[in-house]
Amino acid sequence: MGITLAQAQTALEAAHQKAVEMNVKMNIAVVDAGANLVAFIRMDDAWLGSLDISIKKAKTARFFDMPTGAIGGLSQPGGSLYNIEHSNGGLITFPGGIPIMGDGGKVMGAIGVSGSTVEDDHAVAEAGVQAIEGK
Amino acid sequence: MGITLAQAQTALEAAHQKAVEMNVKMNIAVVDAGANLVAFIRMDDAWLGSLDISIKKAKTARFFDMPTGAIGGLSQPGGSLYNIEHSNGGLITFPGGIPIMGDGGKVMGAIGVSGSTVEDDHAVAEAGVQAIEGK
Amino acid sequence: MGITLAQAQTALEAAHQKAVEMNVKMNIAVVDAGANLVAFIRMDDAWLGSLDISIKKAKTARFFDMPTGAIGGLSQPGGSLYNIEHSNGGLITFPGGIPIMGDGGKVMGAIGVSGSTVEDDHAVAEAGVQAIEGK
Amino acid sequence: MGITLAQAQTALEAAHQKAVEMNVKMNIAVVDAGANLVAFIRMDDAWLGSLDISIKKAKTARFFDMPTGAIGGLSQPGGSLYNIEHSNGGLITFPGGIPIMGDGGKVMGAIGVSGSTVEDDHAVAEAGVQAIEGK
Repeated sequence: MGITLAQAQTALEAAHQKAVEMNVKMNIAVVDAGANLVAFIRMDDAWLGSLDISIKKAKTARFFDMPTGAIGGLSQPGGSLYNIEHSNGGLITFPGGIPIMGDGGKVMGAIGVSGSTVEDDHAVAEAGVQAIEGK
Repeated sequence: MGITLAQAQTALEAAHQKAVEMNVKMNIAVVDAGANLVAFIRMDDAWLGSLDISIKKAKTARFFDMPTGAIGGLSQPGGSLYNIEHSNGGLITFPGGIPIMGDGGKVMGAIGVSGSTVEDDHAVAEAGVQAIEGK
Repeated sequence: MGITLAQAQTALEAAHQKAVEMNVKMNIAVVDAGANLVAFIRMDDAWLGSLDISIKKAKTARFFDMPTGAIGGLSQPGGSLYNIEHSNGGLITFPGGIPIMGDGGKVMGAIGVSGSTVEDDHAVAEAGVQAIEGK
Repeated sequence: MGITLAQAQTALEAAHQKAVEMNVKMNIAVVDAGANLVAFIRMDDAWLGSLDISIKKAKTARFFDMPTGAIGGLSQPGGSLYNIEHSNGGLITFPGGIPIMGDGGKVMGAIGVSGSTVEDDHAVAEAGVQAIEGK
């Protein structure tokens, strides 16, 4: 199913490190190619409500193989995917979820981050992705 | 887990008293730091649909450590947290939920009120908060 | 819908008092004739998992207008109501839930208690019922 | 909210190490005192269905402050807690979930393990608990 636990932990640690540097408190989740959770951490005093959101962001990014914010652009009133958030037990379509690509350009998982502004969430998720793809 | 039952009942009674003075019929819920229900009352003839809303408001306020209305300002179409309400089994993001701070400035729980206008709901919730924080 | 908030609080306080006397830590819920929550308390350090169970016991007792333990006798393997617990979003059919009868012998609500042995749970629920019916 | 992320990771790593030694593939979850997830890992090729079970075991252990197997002994047909599994969105009551006690003897969280026999699951969970309590 794509990403290994070792890879997921590498992404998680890089994202965690980035969050510490940015002085933000995050929930960070990594799912595999089957959109099932592989690894998760909640930093001390991170928002409790962001637990579910971080997992939903990771799942949403893998469900559609694109950053969550790209879906949010289409799910607005009048948009082509209006209210797609009602599917799959609840999607989160604002930034903070990013697919993770494997060597052959195939999606092998995704990371989801929640706990600060959507810009911060996305930056921390990106640090996690880079730790794997950047190698 | 933060708030005690005695404190939760103090908040509940103050909010109830305020609702009686305002001649509104409310559902009032208090959750602890883990966002789990500690105490609840539904006034006679209060809207039945407000039962779930009051509990969701209290949970939402603790999930993100801010008044529910502050989240609603960001979850509108085009906003950065559009449709965040699909997370955590359903959030309520209009006014009426407020975190309750402990002595050290740490959130120890939250109160959620529903049954009238959102302005009335917030005012009744505020009365509950003041009964604890104002001491 | 039957029981008033004042009556529910009378039952709740009597049950709470009984729990203190018995030195047990309980979750106590009262529902009205519509099986909707009217009042609830969770004593400090009571089992967190008993929160949902106390509410489900109160609902179950009103759903079938009998003590929850009576249903549990019929829901066993081979019994006539085998696995009835799958209905209504989840029933709890062991002791601790008791209907509350109004003046005309009509059910006006129910109380559910959870946090100790089923015998203790039932005894505390019975104290709540007596506070209203015994008048 | 009890357990810190650092403590949860200590428990998780000790349990992971034990699983590697035993040559079993596990899902391992740690929740805090509010029964909310703090850290999770799924080992490569571990049963996918054990993901949810490991989290439910951790939650169940904290919900009732006892090892999950102790509840399973009471929830059998004819037992005093028959079908308690229908509460709290689904409990898991066979071995593999254990509360984690803090310094003052207060429960600060719980660990849940799933992926092998219930004896193996319990042994791996116990290794996680010992890494914190044994200090």
